[in-house]
This record gives sequence, C-alpha cells and structure tokens, in this order.
Amino acid sequence: MQRIAIYPGSFDPVTNGHIDILKRALDIFEQVVIAVAENIHKAGLFTAEERIGLLREVVAGDDRVEIDLFSGLLVEYARRRGACTIIRGLRAVADFEYEFQLALMNRQLYSALDTVFLMTDQSHLYVSSSLVKEVARFGGDVSTFVPPPVERALRDRFK
Amino acid sequence: MQRIAIYPGSFDPVTNGHIDILKRALDIFEQVVIAVAENIHKAGLFTAEERIGLLREVVAGDDRVEIDLFSGLLVEYARRRGACTIIRGLRAVADFEYEFQLALMNRQLYSALDTVFLMTDQSHLYVSSSLVKEVARFGGDVSTFVPPPVERALRDRFK
Amino acid sequence: MQRIAIYPGSFDPVTNGHIDILKRALDIFEQVVIAVAENIHKAGLFTAEERIGLLREVVAGDDRVEIDLFSGLLVEYARRRGACTIIRGLRAVADFEYEFQLALMNRQLYSALDTVFLMTDQSHLYVSSSLVKEVARFGGDVSTFVPPPVERALRDRFK
Amino acid sequence: MQRIAIYPGSFDPVTNGHIDILKRALDIFEQVVIAVAENIHKAGLFTAEERIGLLREVVAGDDRVEIDLFSGLLVEYARRRGACTIIRGLRAVADFEYEFQLALMNRQLYSALDTVFLMTDQSHLYVSSSLVKEVARFGGDVSTFVPPPVERALRDRFK
Amino acid sequence: MQRIAIYPGSFDPVTNGHIDILKRALDIFEQVVIAVAENIHKAGLFTAEERIGLLREVVAGDDRVEIDLFSGLLVEYARRRGACTIIRGLRAVADFEYEFQLALMNRQLYSALDTVFLMTDQSHLYVSSSLVKEVARFGGDVSTFVPPPVERALRDRFK
Amino acid sequence: MQRIAIYPGSFDPVTNGHIDILKRALDIFEQVVIAVAENIHKAGLFTAEERIGLLREVVAGDDRVEIDLFSGLLVEYARRRGACTIIRGLRAVADFEYEFQLALMNRQLYSALDTVFLMTDQSHLYVSSSLVKEVARFGGDVSTFVPPPVERALRDRFK
Repeated sequence: MQRIAIYPGSFDPVTNGHIDILKRALDIFEQVVIAVAENIHKAGLFTAEERIGLLREVVAGDDRVEIDLFSGLLVEYARRRGACTIIRGLRAVADFEYEFQLALMNRQLYSALDTVFLMTDQSHLYVSSSLVKEVARFGGDVSTFVPPPVERALRDRFK
Repeated sequence: MQRIAIYPGSFDPVTNGHIDILKRALDIFEQVVIAVAENIHKAGLFTAEERIGLLREVVAGDDRVEIDLFSGLLVEYARRRGACTIIRGLRAVADFEYEFQLALMNRQLYSALDTVFLMTDQSHLYVSSSLVKEVARFGGDVSTFVPPPVERALRDRFK
Repeated sequence: MQRIAIYPGSFDPVTNGHIDILKRALDIFEQVVIAVAENIHKAGLFTAEERIGLLREVVAGDDRVEIDLFSGLLVEYARRRGACTIIRGLRAVADFEYEFQLALMNRQLYSALDTVFLMTDQSHLYVSSSLVKEVARFGGDVSTFVPPPVERALRDRFK
Repeated sequence: MQRIAIYPGSFDPVTNGHIDILKRALDIFEQVVIAVAENIHKAGLFTAEERIGLLREVVAGDDRVEIDLFSGLLVEYARRRGACTIIRGLRAVADFEYEFQLALMNRQLYSALDTVFLMTDQSHLYVSSSLVKEVARFGGDVSTFVPPPVERALRDRFK
Repeated sequence: MQRIAIYPGSFDPVTNGHIDILKRALDIFEQVVIAVAENIHKAGLFTAEERIGLLREVVAGDDRVEIDLFSGLLVEYARRRGACTIIRGLRAVADFEYEFQLALMNRQLYSALDTVFLMTDQSHLYVSSSLVKEVARFGGDVSTFVPPPVERALRDRFK
Repeated sequence: MQRIAIYPGSFDPVTNGHIDILKRALDIFEQVVIAVAENIHKAGLFTAEERIGLLREVVAGDDRVEIDLFSGLLVEYARRRGACTIIRGLRAVADFEYEFQLALMNRQLYSALDTVFLMTDQSHLYVSSSLVKEVARFGGDVSTFVPPPVERALRDRFK
C-alpha cells in the first residue's frame, strides 16, 4: 500500500485549483509531498523560496503535507523519497496530451513510478497560475482564484 | 484514508488493458471492486454472468479484488459500498472528454465521490474490448490483447 | 442587423444548459427561435410534441422566444424563416469538432447562414440530455440539471 | 519499394473527399486498391455492389486503380494482396484519435503493414458520406460534395 | 439588445482571416471595436501604432468599425466601453481549449461579459499572423493571406 | 511516381522516434532527404553542423538517405529539390493540429507539394527531442530514446 505521493509543479504561485487537487489527493494518500520545481529555463514571478513560503502559509498545520524544493529529474527525486505515485491535476485536453507524454516518459525512466490524474473542481477549471498573474498584473481582482496570502503577495509584487 | 476503490465497466470481455489498470490501482488502494455493469441499452457479446466468470478466472486468488455486478446508477452503487473513489483508465483524447464529463456529473450526484484516472501501459494503448471483438470475429489472433481464458471464450463464441 | 436567430436541437428533454445558452443568445438577438428537430433516425424519450410542450412551460411568457418544430434540412428551415444565424452551445472538444464540420457544411449549403457559438456556464459543462436521462432512469436526483417541469416529466416517464 | 497501397472504407457513397485522397495516393503509389468493406454491423444506404458500381463509374479508365470487395479483417486482406500500406484520409481530431488506435492495432496484427495518412483538400474538410446522405435525404443539393453519378444515385434513392 | 462588440487581438499583422471574422461579426452587431492589444510580453513585428495603421487602411470607410488600442485587462476595457460581447475567431482544437479557458475567466471577472465564437471561412483555416510572418520573412508570396497594404508592409519590413 | 521525399525537422538531436519514421518512409519512397532546419528563432542545443554530423553517424551507409541543411521556406527547398512529398511523424493531437495547419499552408504555397503523415512505433510515442534533452540535462539515462552517438554527444554536452 502506497503511503506517500508527490505533487510536483512550479506553484508560481499556488492557486485554489492546486489546493483543490491537494485535498483530493489527501483523501487517497496518507502523505503528500508538494515538490516545488526550481525553474531553470525561465525566471518565475516568485523565487522558489517565495513560492514555498506561500505554500507553507496556505497549508499550515496539516502535517500530512510536506513542502519541498526539488531540482533535476522528477523521477530521481521520487526514487530518493521512496514515492511511487505522482499526482497531477487535469483541466483540459491540451493538459492531457502533455501530461500523458510526460507520464509515459517518467514510467520508462522509473518503472515503479505511476501517475495518478485527479480532476479539479469545475469552479477551478479555468484557473491557472499564468492567467492569475496576468489578471493581477493589471490590478484585476484575483481573490476568488487564490488563497488570501497569495492575493496579498501578488498585490505587493505588482504595486 | 480510503481503502476501497471501484473500477466500473462493461468488461465485454476483460482485456490485458483492464488487467494493467487493475494492477496499478492495487498499488494505491487496499481493495478494488470490479463493478461489472449490466448493459441495459445494448446486448453485449457475453452476458453479465459470463463476463464476471471470465474476470474471476483471470484474477483468481487475489483477495484484494472483488468482482460484483451492478445495475442502476454508479454513484448509488458506490454509496452503498462505502467507496469514495472510482478508477478509470485513460487512453485517448476522446476517452478523456467523455470521462471528464462523467466524472463531473458523478461528483455532483455524490460529492464525496472522486474519480482517479490511471494510464494504461503504452503496449495496451490501442486495445479496447470492441476492437478485440472485431478481430476475434474474423478469426484474427487476439492472444496478445486478452488473457488466455478470454481468448478461448472468444474462439468458442465466434467459431 | 440580424434580428432573429435559430437555436436548433433535439431538446429531449430541455436542460438548464439549454436555458443558459438561450439566455445568452437573447442578450445578442432580438428574437430566438428554438427549432425542435424531429428525430427521424432514433426514437426519443419524449415525442416532438412533448419536447415542445416542456419547452413552452419552461420559457413561458418571454415573447422574444418562439418554439417551433422543424424537419428536413436546417438550412432550408433557416431560409424559410429569413434567419441568418444559427446558435450552438459548446461544451467540449468532441462537441467542437462535430459542430465545426456541421457549420462549414451548412455555410456551403446556404452561404448567408452563419453559426454563432456560445459557451454554457461552467456549472452546466457536464449536463447533457442523454446523461440526464441516464440518471433519471435509475431514480437519481436531476433537480439541479433540469427545470422543474422537466424533472416531473422525467419522474413520470420512468416511474 | 512498395508498388501497391490499399484504400479501405465503406464508400457509402463515395464523395469528392474520397476522390481527392485517391488522387493524392496515386502521386505516391503505382497502384491503389479501393477496398470496399461489407458492413456487417449496419445496413448501408447502398449495397456493397451498388457502392462498387458507383466507384467504377467515378474512376473509370484509370488502370492504376482497382476496386475490390473485402470482408473480414483488413490486415488479412492486405496480407493476401501483398500490400504493405494502408491509405487513410484525415479530416479532424476525432478522426485522428480513432485512426491512430486502429493503425496501432493493425500494425500489431501484421507488423509489415503501415498506415499512411493523407490530408484532404480544405474544400472537402467537412464532407463525409453520412452528412451527404443527410443532406440528400431532405432534397438538398449535394452536387459540390459528390461526383455526378453519385448525385444521381442519391436522388433516385431518396425520391 | 447589444449594439457593440469588441474584437480583441494582437493583429500583428491583420490577415484575411481577421477580416473574414470582422465581416461576420458585422452581420450580427451594429458596431465592432477592434481592440488592438499592446504586447507587453514580447516585441511584435509591427508596433501597436503600425498595426493600427494597417487596420485603418484595410477597413477604411466603414463607420461601423472602430479601431482602438487597449492595454491592461480586456474585461476592464470592455466595462469602460459598455460592451458585453467579445468576438473570437475559432480555427482549431488548440485554439478552442485556450479560448474556452480565457472566456470562463473573463466571465468570472465581469459576469455581464460574454464571448461569441465565430468560425472563419474554410479558405482561411490555416492562416495565422505568425505563419504569415514566417512565410514573408523568407520572401514567400503572402498575397492570398493578407490584404494588399499588409503585403506591402511585410515586404518593406523584410527587404 | 514520386521517387523522393523530404523529411524536415530540427533534429536537435535526432531520436529513435525520428529513425523509426525514416525507416517507414524508406518502405514507401526510393530516396528520403532529411532536411535539417537552421533554427533562426532560437538557439538549439546543437548547431546545425553538429545535428547533421549526428544524423550522418546514425544513418551512415544507407545511400537512399541524404542529409541536407536548409534555411528559408520549406516549400522553396522542396521545389528546388524537385520533391513533391513532405514526411511528417505524428504522435499526439497537439502535433496533429499544428501539422494540419502547416500542411494546408504549404499546399497553398506550392500546390504540387503534399504531406504524408506516418505514425511512429508505440514504443516511441513519448519520445521528443525536447524531453530527451531535459532528461539528459539532469544526468538521466537516455539510452533507450536515442542512438548511441547521440547519447554520447548529450553526455559530453551536459557534463
């Protein structure tokens, strides 16, 4: 029986959609490690440390959740952590195609590693970190898309 | 922590793709109930009893797996069984769209019920019960697509 | 300036998703004709007369809406009515592909006829007449998917 | 070097889209066998003999084209004919998904058999046999979608 | 009854596909505002002023069309203009997914704002500003994809 | 009868998926020209010369294959070479949409030029140059995704 699952992503920043997927994952797994990826290809809006800080504020006090930084290959990180499950949220067909390709590649690199796809609540279907940043950049109200600490951080960043 | 998941379908007949998804589900859940749907809309190639018989032969001896018949709404069946997770295998975009719609509907009907999508091994990506039946009908070799008891049953049915 | 648009479909039965699209169409067009198609290929759950009756109950009193029966080619019906716009609701990629093909065909048959795609509210994304019938058939609660007269009709039909 | 390719389908009836794909195939292959499938699951509008008769009228005089009837598995037919290439036309994403699954299955059943996908001219993107029959059934003008002999046959059938 | 619709985009540069969508929109709405977005993320081939200049040349003399520059959130621009409809052209599935997500987000930010999807003529299905720029960059003939003033501007830019 | 086909791409670097498509193309065409595109928009991991060098090592000794550099429009290159067929490999829906658009554009620019889509073996479905580079960058084992010379080159580049 698997006890631990890894939920990887950029979380730049964490949205209500991410939190929704996390809650669904915690109905299935005893422990979920949120693995925050260092972006090596592009600069994020928030640094990895800031993204981790926001996640900690948002899921504070739930000891079934661990927040960690990872760099390098996700499969190597999973192997090191002894995890056999990757959690991914699905929203759309474009998501699905890429996720499918990635999951097959990861399985090839580490055959014991499987990917579990969960579906976000329909109220979050259109919420992505990049759209949220776009709205916040121009002073739009993002309070229904992100938790309060993230809303404050976005307001600070773009003021 | 969820201990039980339901893997619903027609299984007319069970293929190696279904078995692959079942094994992946058993890495995550302590018990999986294969819930064989009575087809009310169309006659299957095998009756519900035959489909259950083939499943029993194929997964014999694994007491983490239960095989059951269900009719009516899947959400009601899940409620009765105390299960909060539905297992579905994904192969293609067309699958995904329909599954997505169904999962949202089921969640609306029974909010505690969530759907977990697993991905079949790439060697089974093209294997579906209906394609297998099409091949077997014309005497094609289906031994790489279905377990031996199913191969025998298909040969008997179409001879 | 176009004053009239046609919203064609089977409406077997009308759902809250249809009503949502209708309301959005009425923000754009002065009059919308709900054109109920006679199903020649397959028997519906409700007859064309019953489907029209339910629609009348649901949109009663809004004189910007006309409910009509049509058979034959939609483009001929539109030509007879002097309408140059077809309204279609979009939910998913599978919808989109088929609708796209149909709209190009219709435009070829009647070049003045254009198709306008509207998007249903996200709370109706998974609601289709066929899923609703499936749920009602087994005694499931469909009150959040269809207007009250339709809910009663479904209960009568399946009791 | 492959000299012969098989272009399978129902051709119920042949459309300008099919003819367009055939012409493109003849730019690549020395001989193309149009393999008309007997529909065992559903009755067509035209019998297999009628469908073959229409094809003969339409491609008359081109001795690079052979028209043949096949039943059973396409891979067995291809093996018997010594053909290693299947021709398929692509129009849309829904086509693509199904064709992809079928091509992988066929390759598994007969590893030397490969599928070549060609793209119809954009003027035929929306033309399918079933839409054409729908239009003709109600007396619509199908002269831009099908060759003249097919137009006459459709008019006869539906008068 | 809505009188005004907004057709937003980069228009870098305007293509015949854009013009085709504009004409279809003018069959439905009394006035269409072409809202040219300032690209803040990436430099365009043409500046916002040049893109507006080309649009003015191309739609000169049609006083139902207004061309405007906008920056910031589209929903805020629509609110300021008193417009309740966004016009978007659809070509492909990849378009559709993204447009769908965007439209749901915009509706959340400004609930009175709806998105109307129109379908370009099939002769423009493959025409996009970026492909046109790619072709023009290497001296290819783009005269069937863009209006004459745009063709001249592209030739000047890349000579 | 076409004797020559062009297989264009970045090949940065060539993968087993590319080699698989090449072999399938050689079953149909007498000669295949691998046309390596100079990337003008973004720097590749390998220069065009290095990418060509790796291709030469991998397909050495097969005189049905020519490896060439091209810049500018693919259609102009095809015209110069007297080739009427473009070879493209298909993996996923996202691929398909873009390829479809590109093929229609190319056909418009050079009407004698047709695109033939081939499907990679299912064992390569998830292999792309960019995923391979991602894995190699972090020291992952790419030996099942690329030929040995490419594996060595990737190890050198990222050490």
